[in-house]
Amino acid sequence: MMHFKVIFKTVSVLILILDIFLLLCAGVGAYYEEWAAVRSFLLSIAISGCISFGILFVFRHEKQKTLSTRDGLITVTLSWLVASTVAAFPYIFDGGMLTVTDAFFETMSGFSTTGATILTDIEKMPGSLLLWRSLTHWLGGMGIVVLGVAILPLLGIGGMQLMQAEAPGPSVDKITPRIAETAKYLWYVYVGFTALETFLLVCGGMTFFDALNHSFSTLATGGFSTKNLSVGHYDSAYIDGVITLFMVIAGMNFTLHFRLMSGNFKGIFRNTELKAYLLVFFAASAVIAFSLHGKIYGSVWESIRYASFQAASILSTTGFATTDYEYWTYLGQVTLLVLMFVGGCSGSTAGGIKVVRIATLLKQGFNEMKFLVHPRGVFILKISGYPVRKNIVYAISGFFFLYVCTLLVVTSALAASDIDLLTSFTAALATVGNIGPGFGNVGPAENYAFLPDHVKWILSFAMMAGRLELYTVFVLFTPMFWKK
Amino acid sequence: MMHFKVIFKTVSVLILILDIFLLLCAGVGAYYEEWAAVRSFLLSIAISGCISFGILFVFRHEKQKTLSTRDGLITVTLSWLVASTVAAFPYIFDGGMLTVTDAFFETMSGFSTTGATILTDIEKMPGSLLLWRSLTHWLGGMGIVVLGVAILPLLGIGGMQLMQAEAPGPSVDKITPRIAETAKYLWYVYVGFTALETFLLVCGGMTFFDALNHSFSTLATGGFSTKNLSVGHYDSAYIDGVITLFMVIAGMNFTLHFRLMSGNFKGIFRNTELKAYLLVFFAASAVIAFSLHGKIYGSVWESIRYASFQAASILSTTGFATTDYEYWTYLGQVTLLVLMFVGGCSGSTAGGIKVVRIATLLKQGFNEMKFLVHPRGVFILKISGYPVRKNIVYAISGFFFLYVCTLLVVTSALAASDIDLLTSFTAALATVGNIGPGFGNVGPAENYAFLPDHVKWILSFAMMAGRLELYTVFVLFTPMFWKK
Ligand SMILES: [K+]
Ligand SMILES: [K+]
Repeated sequence: MMHFKVIFKTVSVLILILDIFLLLCAGVGAYYEEWAAVRSFLLSIAISGCISFGILFVFRHEKQKTLSTRDGLITVTLSWLVASTVAAFPYIFDGGMLTVTDAFFETMSGFSTTGATILTDIEKMPGSLLLWRSLTHWLGGMGIVVLGVAILPLLGIGGMQLMQAEAPGPSVDKITPRIAETAKYLWYVYVGFTALETFLLVCGGMTFFDALNHSFSTLATGGFSTKNLSVGHYDSAYIDGVITLFMVIAGMNFTLHFRLMSGNFKGIFRNTELKAYLLVFFAASAVIAFSLHGKIYGSVWESIRYASFQAASILSTTGFATTDYEYWTYLGQVTLLVLMFVGGCSGSTAGGIKVVRIATLLKQGFNEMKFLVHPRGVFILKISGYPVRKNIVYAISGFFFLYVCTLLVVTSALAASDIDLLTSFTAALATVGNIGPGFGNVGPAENYAFLPDHVKWILSFAMMAGRLELYTVFVLFTPMFWKK
Repeated sequence: MMHFKVIFKTVSVLILILDIFLLLCAGVGAYYEEWAAVRSFLLSIAISGCISFGILFVFRHEKQKTLSTRDGLITVTLSWLVASTVAAFPYIFDGGMLTVTDAFFETMSGFSTTGATILTDIEKMPGSLLLWRSLTHWLGGMGIVVLGVAILPLLGIGGMQLMQAEAPGPSVDKITPRIAETAKYLWYVYVGFTALETFLLVCGGMTFFDALNHSFSTLATGGFSTKNLSVGHYDSAYIDGVITLFMVIAGMNFTLHFRLMSGNFKGIFRNTELKAYLLVFFAASAVIAFSLHGKIYGSVWESIRYASFQAASILSTTGFATTDYEYWTYLGQVTLLVLMFVGGCSGSTAGGIKVVRIATLLKQGFNEMKFLVHPRGVFILKISGYPVRKNIVYAISGFFFLYVCTLLVVTSALAASDIDLLTSFTAALATVGNIGPGFGNVGPAENYAFLPDHVKWILSFAMMAGRLELYTVFVLFTPMFWKK
């Protein structure tokens, strides 16, 4: 039996939280005297607020029950769906600025921290709406890091099952037994990094507004910018450097940041995922810089600057751009393509397959070879010094296969709408992996506006499914899930 | 300890078998009065024959020992390497017709049944060399079906370990306990189908020479043609139909053909792989035909003819072409791209990931979802009605990951030589999957001649590794393999 009433109550609370942030944006709109936007924000709050309070009132006698895994799974997907719907209101009510399809695509892209945009002229948008756009990233990113670990259990939804749901595999590290407290600390880390990046960007000459928006976007590994040319607009080595650093940070497991701050260095140096992540980042940056030097950029320094920025941007699945990498060498491009598959660390805001999964599968691959030579040997797979249970390796293998299948299905759906192979495939990769830009017609200098409406819905679904680790969403489509 | 002397003896016997076929081609060359080719064949036989007899003589006192798995693994890879080297002699000795690189690429492409060619004008080649070219397919295909199951054990090399080596996973079906006898029957099936196809093609108006060559190529799912336009040269619906049928047959598990002929129908209808294979073939043909009708081909009949031919050609990893599918709709193209991943059945001459692996991983994916909803449930994975052991699913997952990694590494290697992404990726897919044609500059109307030499060596390696199920070759590069 599923507890739909309690699920609805949970989602209603979520909407009310969103409404607080909408109100904030309305205030900013009033400050900038963007009255159409303010009207739109207030209308959105009024409608969504009424519905939420209505649901909470009607089900006020429903008590918190021990919810099942299934309830948890539904709640997670429903939260992303409903949040994206409510968050789309301001875009739609503001004099029909965007169509319903475009608005939903943009907010799903925001909450899933994908950063794929349908806006063709970003700088024309009212500031308060741009802030809201960056906030969908920031809230979505926080949702991914914190929600699954802490907030939802507080609302009365089973904790561990949800952690499983949001992250099948060995990703969530039980850093303290008190989940609520953990969540609070992760919050602090997230907010702290955002504040620090904002400060550093303002020091580099950015306006406070731009700095805040870009920090929201960076920490969420989102990729929405307030400028048409993305970070390339500022053409500043200092700003590139700051954002590179924070993109790399945002792609790391946030429980590690928390540990670092509480002085626990021991666990960090033996963390397989972190070591692999940094190795991939530096190796990819080096390969790209080497490949571009003398061909695209004259100086070594410039090659390193652009290479490391783009490697960090794609590996962390942020998707910011300082240049159109489609004009790079093919080696530079293919390195980015490989990074698109990898993605960031588990427990971060990054998308992609995740470094820990790749590392586990590589180790498993070596074990298979050992097994071939020594058929009677017993080989233990260790991650961060701990043996990994076979069931988890199993789940990861399954995830990897499902990931590739999803990519091929989404690619086919796009090709069926007469979109060329490279664009279709990388659009699939960029949305399922929550990256944002791909290659071809969805490259870093292009956007997703040209796609037919039904493709935008398919990609919205892909972004959500990718963000929620596929299984969480796909399981809802099995008849078995709905059986009593 | 490895038994190199016995390994060398085995490979020498293999070379002597090749020499018999070279002699046959020399005879054909004499019949066609292609004296340069005849001289080249005889020289190849003389050199390789002397070396082989030399090795056999020197090690004549070496007795058959119980060989280890490692010996088996080395023998398999070494056989393909040495055979491709020896088979390249006639191309090189014939007045320097091909460079060493091109000749090796062409023979590795032959023995691995890939069918990627560096010949820009096939029809200019002497007939006896074209026959030799088709024979490398046919012998390589037979090698894949029979060698692992039967011939090598006859030569004194451990049977079951090799079967493991050549086909990790649930592919080899122990159809009779007497392996030698099984091999003989598989031989009959292989030769029988070749003869039947040759007969049917001659009935369709092909010359006996062309019919024989195309039959060699079809049964091996190779793809070498004697015509520049491949099967499209004949522009005959009848010939297209016959070849479509035999490509589908060649992509099936040969033990099933054997069973069918011995009247055992029961096992066939419950064979998961066969059912999935036929389903994929018909579904893909339907999707492509639907997509092409009215856009590329006027009539339904024509759409079905070209769609089913190309679907069979790519799914069975043969790689024949009746048209340049790069001018098809993107949906048609992407369907072929997906088929390139899938490949044919285990125990056939086809390459690719193989249908049984995809089926197992899909079932495993569903089991994972069941497990998410019922964490305490026990779910058994069945293929063809039998439960599959976890270790095998493990090995298959590992294989899939390794396959994708290999594709990305080969793609990167090509991109590093300044080859565009689509060409790089599909060249990787077409060689690792032993298909032949890809997209972009290695499409069905193009060839591999334009690639730089070092890329040809990389792709030769990719063809061999793909043909030998990756693990077999990769394990030789681990230090652990060479440890005492
Ligand atoms: K992103
Ligand atoms: K082939």
